[in-house]
Amino acid sequence: MGEKPNLLVTNSHVAGRLDNLSSHAKVYWLDDLDDKELGRLLPLIDAVLVQMWWPDSLTPERISRMSRLRFIQSGWAGVNHIPFRHLGKRVIVSSNAGGFSVGVAEFALALVLAAAKRVVKLDRVLRTGEFYPAQVDDLAREVVQLRGRTLGILGYGGIGRMVGSMGRALGMNLLAFSRRPSSQGDIQILHGGEGLRKVLKTCDAVVIALPLSKLTVGLIGSAELEAMKGDAILVNVARAEIVDEEALYHHLLKCPGFTYATDVWQLKRGKETYSSKFPFLKLSNFIGSPHVAGGSSALTGEPGKAAVENLTRYLKGEAPQNIVDPSEYV
Amino acid sequence: MGEKPNLLVTNSHVAGRLDNLSSHAKVYWLDDLDDKELGRLLPLIDAVLVQMWWPDSLTPERISRMSRLRFIQSGWAGVNHIPFRHLGKRVIVSSNAGGFSVGVAEFALALVLAAAKRVVKLDRVLRTGEFYPAQVDDLAREVVQLRGRTLGILGYGGIGRMVGSMGRALGMNLLAFSRRPSSQGDIQILHGGEGLRKVLKTCDAVVIALPLSKLTVGLIGSAELEAMKGDAILVNVARAEIVDEEALYHHLLKCPGFTYATDVWQLKRGKETYSSKFPFLKLSNFIGSPHVAGGSSALTGEPGKAAVENLTRYLKGEAPQNIVDPSEYV
Repeated sequence: MGEKPNLLVTNSHVAGRLDNLSSHAKVYWLDDLDDKELGRLLPLIDAVLVQMWWPDSLTPERISRMSRLRFIQSGWAGVNHIPFRHLGKRVIVSSNAGGFSVGVAEFALALVLAAAKRVVKLDRVLRTGEFYPAQVDDLAREVVQLRGRTLGILGYGGIGRMVGSMGRALGMNLLAFSRRPSSQGDIQILHGGEGLRKVLKTCDAVVIALPLSKLTVGLIGSAELEAMKGDAILVNVARAEIVDEEALYHHLLKCPGFTYATDVWQLKRGKETYSSKFPFLKLSNFIGSPHVAGGSSALTGEPGKAAVENLTRYLKGEAPQNIVDPSEYV
Repeated sequence: MGEKPNLLVTNSHVAGRLDNLSSHAKVYWLDDLDDKELGRLLPLIDAVLVQMWWPDSLTPERISRMSRLRFIQSGWAGVNHIPFRHLGKRVIVSSNAGGFSVGVAEFALALVLAAAKRVVKLDRVLRTGEFYPAQVDDLAREVVQLRGRTLGILGYGGIGRMVGSMGRALGMNLLAFSRRPSSQGDIQILHGGEGLRKVLKTCDAVVIALPLSKLTVGLIGSAELEAMKGDAILVNVARAEIVDEEALYHHLLKCPGFTYATDVWQLKRGKETYSSKFPFLKLSNFIGSPHVAGGSSALTGEPGKAAVENLTRYLKGEAPQNIVDPSEYV
C-alpha cells in the first residue's frame, strides 16, 4: 500500500478512542458525510469499522459500489448483523470475539448465580408483601449450591473460556460444547449433536456463548430442552435466536423448576425490543435483562481497543485475527 | 469421662444426620421429651447441640437447673441467639463458623453480582412493560464491570475468606477488616475504626461477614455509609443488626446509585420477619432475600457435619474449635 488506505467508521459518537487509527489510514466518519460526499467516497473505501449495528445507510446498493472494500472490522463479538450476502467474495470480516469477554462473562455468572440462588424471584416475592412462611421455606429449598455441580459452556471462545474459569473458581465441574473440534488441556470439549446432547443432559447450569450463525440458529429446540435436567439453569448471553422461543416458552411452563435467564432478545425489524410474543416476563422461572452485558465492557474501552488493534493489523498489512467464515452466515 | 456424657439435641426434625453421635454420648431429643422427662434430665445434661434457634422451651429457669452443662454446640455460624447471660461461667459455646461458608459465600457473590449488573432492577423494569429506550440506556450505563475493582470483606473468617477467593477469581482487588489483628499473607487486613473507615472508603463492593456481637451491633451507621463511594454496593449475609437500619434507609434515599443487598433481617420478638418498619422493599436500590443463603449449604449436609464433628471432639475429650468469647455477647 503506497498511500494510506481509506477507512470508513460508522457511529462516530464514540470517536474519542479511535484517534490512533489516523496514523494508519485516512479516516472518514459515516455520520459526518452527506449523501453526495458518501457517494463520491464509496468506490475509494478499503476498510470499514462497524462500531455497533451495521448502519441502515449502507444499503446493498451502496455496498455494491464499494469496489475497493476488502476488510470489515466488527466492533461487536457477534457479526450476524453484517450483510454477508451483499459483500464481494474478497471482503474479509473480522469479529471482535474476545473484546467483550470480561463484561459478558461476568454477566453470565451473575445470571447463573441469580438463577441458582433465586435472587430475582425472592426479591419479587418479598416486594409483594404477600408471602407466608411456608412459601419462603419452599423457595429456600429451591436455592442451590453451585460448588460440586457441573457447568456447561456452549461455545468455548473468549467469553466461554472466561465463564469456565469463573465456574472453576466456584468449585464447579466444567463441560464444554464447541462447533469445531479443538483441544484445551483443562476441559472436556464435545462436538456435534451427540456432544451437545451430552452437555445438556449432564450439566446443572448451561451458558450459551456461541455466535449466531446458520449453524446455531434454533440450535436449542424442544428436544434439547427436554434433554436438560428438570431443575437446570440455561443462561443466554449470546443471541436470542439460538434458542427456539416457542419451545422454550412451553418448556418453562412445563418445568417450573427450570430457569432461563437471558440478556438477549430476538430482533424485530433489525431491533431488539426486549419483549417477545410469548409472555416470558410473566413467568417466575424467567430472568430478563435488556442486552446490557457488553455495555459494562464497552465503558471500560476494552472492546473498542481490541477492535482497533485488530483493524490496525490489517491496515499495516499484517494478518487480522478472528476472521469469520462467511459460509456460516450467508 | 467414665460413662458416656448426656447430650440434648434441639429441633429433632433434621435428625438423620446425627446418628453417629450415639457412639460418643447418650442422646436425648428435646422434641421427644415431655415436661416431666425434661425436668428429670436437665441436671444430668452435659452438652447441648442447638441445631437452629435456641428453643423457647429452654427457658432461663430451666437453664439454671442444668448444673452439669459444660458445652453448647451451635448448628449455625451466628451465636447471637444463645442466651449467654443465663449460662454458667463454665459453659463453653462453640459456633459453627465455617460450616456454612460455601453456601453463604456463593450467596454473597450472587448479591454482589446482582447489584453490580443491576439484574434484579432490570428484570423488574422489563416486567412492568413500561420502559422506554432512553431509560434502558441509562440502566445499562449503571452496569459495572467488577474486574479491576476492589472488594471489601468485613469479617475475614470462613465465609469472608471464601468470598475473598471468589472475588480474586473475578480479578478483583481485595481488602479486609477484622475485629482482631491477624495476618494472612494474601490480603491486607485492617483493624479498628480507622481500618474499617479505610475499607469502606476504598472499596466498590463490601460484603459483611461478621458475627453479630456487642462489638458489631450498629457497626455500620450513617458515618460509615457516608464514607462509602456513592455508587458502592453493600452486601449483608451476616446479621441485619450490624447495620443501623434507619441510617441505611436514609442513605439509600439520598444515594440512588448506592445498592444494599441483604439476606438478613432484624429480629422482632425472636423471629426474622423479612420486613422492616422502613419501606426498603419499595426502593429500587435495595435487594432482599428471606435468609436463605445458608439453606443451600444445610441441604448438602456440610454444616450439620461440621457441627457434629466439632461436638464429637468435645464428647471424646478433645478440644473443640470455634469457641466463642462470651464477653462479646453478654
